[in-house]
Amino acid sequence: MQQDTLTIAGKEYSSRLLVGTGKYKDLAETKAATEASGAQIITVAIRRTNIGQNKDEPNLLDVIPLDKYTLLPNTAGCYNVEDAVRTCRLARELLNGHKLVKLEVLGDAKTLYPDTIQTLKAAEILVKDGFDVMVYTSDDPLIARQLEDIGCVAVMPLAAPIGSGLGIRNPYNILEIIENAKVPIIVDAGVGTASDAAIAMEMGCAGVLMNTAIAGAKNPVLMASAMKKAIEAGREAFLAGRMPRKRYASASSPLDGTFF
Amino acid sequence: MQQDTLTIAGKEYSSRLLVGTGKYKDLAETKAATEASGAQIITVAIRRTNIGQNKDEPNLLDVIPLDKYTLLPNTAGCYNVEDAVRTCRLARELLNGHKLVKLEVLGDAKTLYPDTIQTLKAAEILVKDGFDVMVYTSDDPLIARQLEDIGCVAVMPLAAPIGSGLGIRNPYNILEIIENAKVPIIVDAGVGTASDAAIAMEMGCAGVLMNTAIAGAKNPVLMASAMKKAIEAGREAFLAGRMPRKRYASASSPLDGTFF
Amino acid sequence: MQQDTLTIAGKEYSSRLLVGTGKYKDLAETKAATEASGAQIITVAIRRTNIGQNKDEPNLLDVIPLDKYTLLPNTAGCYNVEDAVRTCRLARELLNGHKLVKLEVLGDAKTLYPDTIQTLKAAEILVKDGFDVMVYTSDDPLIARQLEDIGCVAVMPLAAPIGSGLGIRNPYNILEIIENAKVPIIVDAGVGTASDAAIAMEMGCAGVLMNTAIAGAKNPVLMASAMKKAIEAGREAFLAGRMPRKRYASASSPLDGTFF
Amino acid sequence: MQQDTLTIAGKEYSSRLLVGTGKYKDLAETKAATEASGAQIITVAIRRTNIGQNKDEPNLLDVIPLDKYTLLPNTAGCYNVEDAVRTCRLARELLNGHKLVKLEVLGDAKTLYPDTIQTLKAAEILVKDGFDVMVYTSDDPLIARQLEDIGCVAVMPLAAPIGSGLGIRNPYNILEIIENAKVPIIVDAGVGTASDAAIAMEMGCAGVLMNTAIAGAKNPVLMASAMKKAIEAGREAFLAGRMPRKRYASASSPLDGTFF
Repeated sequence: MQQDTLTIAGKEYSSRLLVGTGKYKDLAETKAATEASGAQIITVAIRRTNIGQNKDEPNLLDVIPLDKYTLLPNTAGCYNVEDAVRTCRLARELLNGHKLVKLEVLGDAKTLYPDTIQTLKAAEILVKDGFDVMVYTSDDPLIARQLEDIGCVAVMPLAAPIGSGLGIRNPYNILEIIENAKVPIIVDAGVGTASDAAIAMEMGCAGVLMNTAIAGAKNPVLMASAMKKAIEAGREAFLAGRMPRKRYASASSPLDGTFF
Repeated sequence: MQQDTLTIAGKEYSSRLLVGTGKYKDLAETKAATEASGAQIITVAIRRTNIGQNKDEPNLLDVIPLDKYTLLPNTAGCYNVEDAVRTCRLARELLNGHKLVKLEVLGDAKTLYPDTIQTLKAAEILVKDGFDVMVYTSDDPLIARQLEDIGCVAVMPLAAPIGSGLGIRNPYNILEIIENAKVPIIVDAGVGTASDAAIAMEMGCAGVLMNTAIAGAKNPVLMASAMKKAIEAGREAFLAGRMPRKRYASASSPLDGTFF
Repeated sequence: MQQDTLTIAGKEYSSRLLVGTGKYKDLAETKAATEASGAQIITVAIRRTNIGQNKDEPNLLDVIPLDKYTLLPNTAGCYNVEDAVRTCRLARELLNGHKLVKLEVLGDAKTLYPDTIQTLKAAEILVKDGFDVMVYTSDDPLIARQLEDIGCVAVMPLAAPIGSGLGIRNPYNILEIIENAKVPIIVDAGVGTASDAAIAMEMGCAGVLMNTAIAGAKNPVLMASAMKKAIEAGREAFLAGRMPRKRYASASSPLDGTFF
Repeated sequence: MQQDTLTIAGKEYSSRLLVGTGKYKDLAETKAATEASGAQIITVAIRRTNIGQNKDEPNLLDVIPLDKYTLLPNTAGCYNVEDAVRTCRLARELLNGHKLVKLEVLGDAKTLYPDTIQTLKAAEILVKDGFDVMVYTSDDPLIARQLEDIGCVAVMPLAAPIGSGLGIRNPYNILEIIENAKVPIIVDAGVGTASDAAIAMEMGCAGVLMNTAIAGAKNPVLMASAMKKAIEAGREAFLAGRMPRKRYASASSPLDGTFF
């Protein structure tokens, strides 16, 4: 398993779990959970998180040091192209030319569902501007393909609405996206527990990004450890090639799955 | 997590994954997969496996040494009370008074579904005869409770038919069994891939026993590793307490789950 | 479709929906909902319903006249063989030698789950005593077969616990029962809405028995009509032979169903 | 139930089942199945169906007479805005100013998935040009809302890919669309059998459009009847207000749905 790495924008990662930093009770918990998760790519909502903008406040980078983690600034809270693009540029400035960003352009404050049309426009601008764009999107396979064609370095369809914890609502579409992609497909948003993450990986996702599933657990640090193992378990199961589903052990052919 | 052990018949185990030894291509693969699984309790079909009965044939105990593993002789292939009881007694003799057995009395050669009525009778005889009985059964909550009342040390409902790989067919019943039990409930049979195992553990199962899901994978050793991690992930997620399912992040109350 | 009738104990019925009479607000609603359902077999809890035992109270038979409906006395509320057998005999007396009964022997007051072992014993006694026994049971395929072997005229596995409205919890087992049966298999208990009933019929059930799904709806009479149509729709879909499930219209072979 | 009609572009319909005319073995079967379905709105692929373009060939309008049915010309086979718009205008000419059309702009020949961006553009042109546009789209709730805002008279999200028969892949999104819409939401594509149609209606869809589920059944005419009843059953169940899902009859509160 040594060679099984995730490559994003030319950089290799041994962990396939990407985590956010929101919703923890304090920076100590953020630090402990992040470490337990084994994540190497940490996403940060630039509009809500102090990474140096406010000199006198606690700085996330004290617990997520840049020499240890790859920071993934994101545009959470942006509802139009302009805000999203501006936020990415601000992140680049704050982080001395850092190119890797996670783009999200939301269309709805209730569901936090992505506005795919604005997302496509913002992605195009950012790619042209030299960013390495990982992009949050719906599970629409055609939109996913267009985002890849634009030059995004990873496409990140939602499993379910952000913060819902419902797991993959539409495995059909996620699988369709995976099978047609040349860039890493990373499920972003909607995972609720360890098995949800394992399922995503078993389908062939390159990784999973989550925040609430860890930060919203009763014991976030223990859940972070669970997620680390679940991602690895799902990945290994995918690589190992599962047994066929059959109606019985004695059945000679796999199941056609009509009823179950 | 150090104290989170599984206790069966007074003995503590750190692993909650129990594995079988059938269907591997050779003893070397059996050994490698068993080690990768981290399992400490290894079940053996006494009627099909040489653990010393046949002096001149390969002996399973050469790769599953008794000083390292707890052997769990099982009555696979028994379709009535007599055969099952006799098989357990044979195992006890072969293993110098070994008391821990896994009882299964099958009712149907096609589905390998348990005959619960014969199972109850055999369990009663074996418990009275001093065995520590772990018992394979259906997911009928009332039968499970009766098996516990008889004195079985663990109750092992099926997730799905043996060798089917379909995962938990009826989470409702499994949860009902778990919530009403004082002995460990271990899902036995039907798991197909890592997430199936994680789901069982997230529901509160004490452990999972499997064979085909590992031996029937394209790469059994890698799948054994996946299962080890999945069991740990599911257990930790259970202990960590998952986030509530909500329709949206902004929803004030958990989901009632009518449609999804 | 004229010839497609349900035969139970030698009598033919055009309706495949069987209904109970409990939980309505008054006899007028019972009458209206029963008529809207089109049901011809009406089950009655002998221990809870006045069918003439109490001369001065409202009599169910005033709204469910015996010349129009087949009454199906049931043993709801019986938790052992004796009570169940005695209740059936009481019904036979009250109804002048009526032989058709629905046997249920419950094992648990919380879940109303059947005690299959007591059910088998009571069925044996009742069949020998000349009753035509329709029998409520779990979805255990082996128990279902034994009940058929004893001579029950219909086997009635639960979809889900009585009054839960959860729909078929384990389609796998229900299908297994159907495919191995020579007597009608009628799903009894657990249906919650019209599509649940349609699904049961599409699987090949001979009929569905329900009570709470109708009586517990906000508008029971309209729901009764919905159920009538759903049963017919499901039956016709079963007979018509559905299209294969495919991943796409252009796919040349049906789906193997791994993920969806 | 007399007043429960579906209103589209100012016209009332008693049937909520809309059907296509493709894939039947001959016009006689088309006629028989269409009649059995009770459908009043019949969709026709203008590019593939003779409704008078070819004088010497069988004319669909001979079996689907315009005085009896509302014809719904559709743009099946169109992969860009121009083709779709031109096809609608051709239909308007052929049908003497007929304004009601079903717009579909496909993005992928394998999945027949809609190209939502092109669909939005074509919808805008057609609405401005005076058409009453019913529009096939993905289950993206934001796109659905934009199509409504443009002025489409009905929004028609897919249940699953055209011709797949997989049923509603993402009930979450369909429900989200329904709850936020002021125009009728009609599930279009992907239904496979009667219960799929009932489920759509129980969620609150205004109707269901299907073709392969009927034409691809072994007995299309019987399946058409099944679908008629399933749509009515689902609609009535929706209006009747189903019983709450509970873990047991004795449970005091509805289920939170975590595991089942």
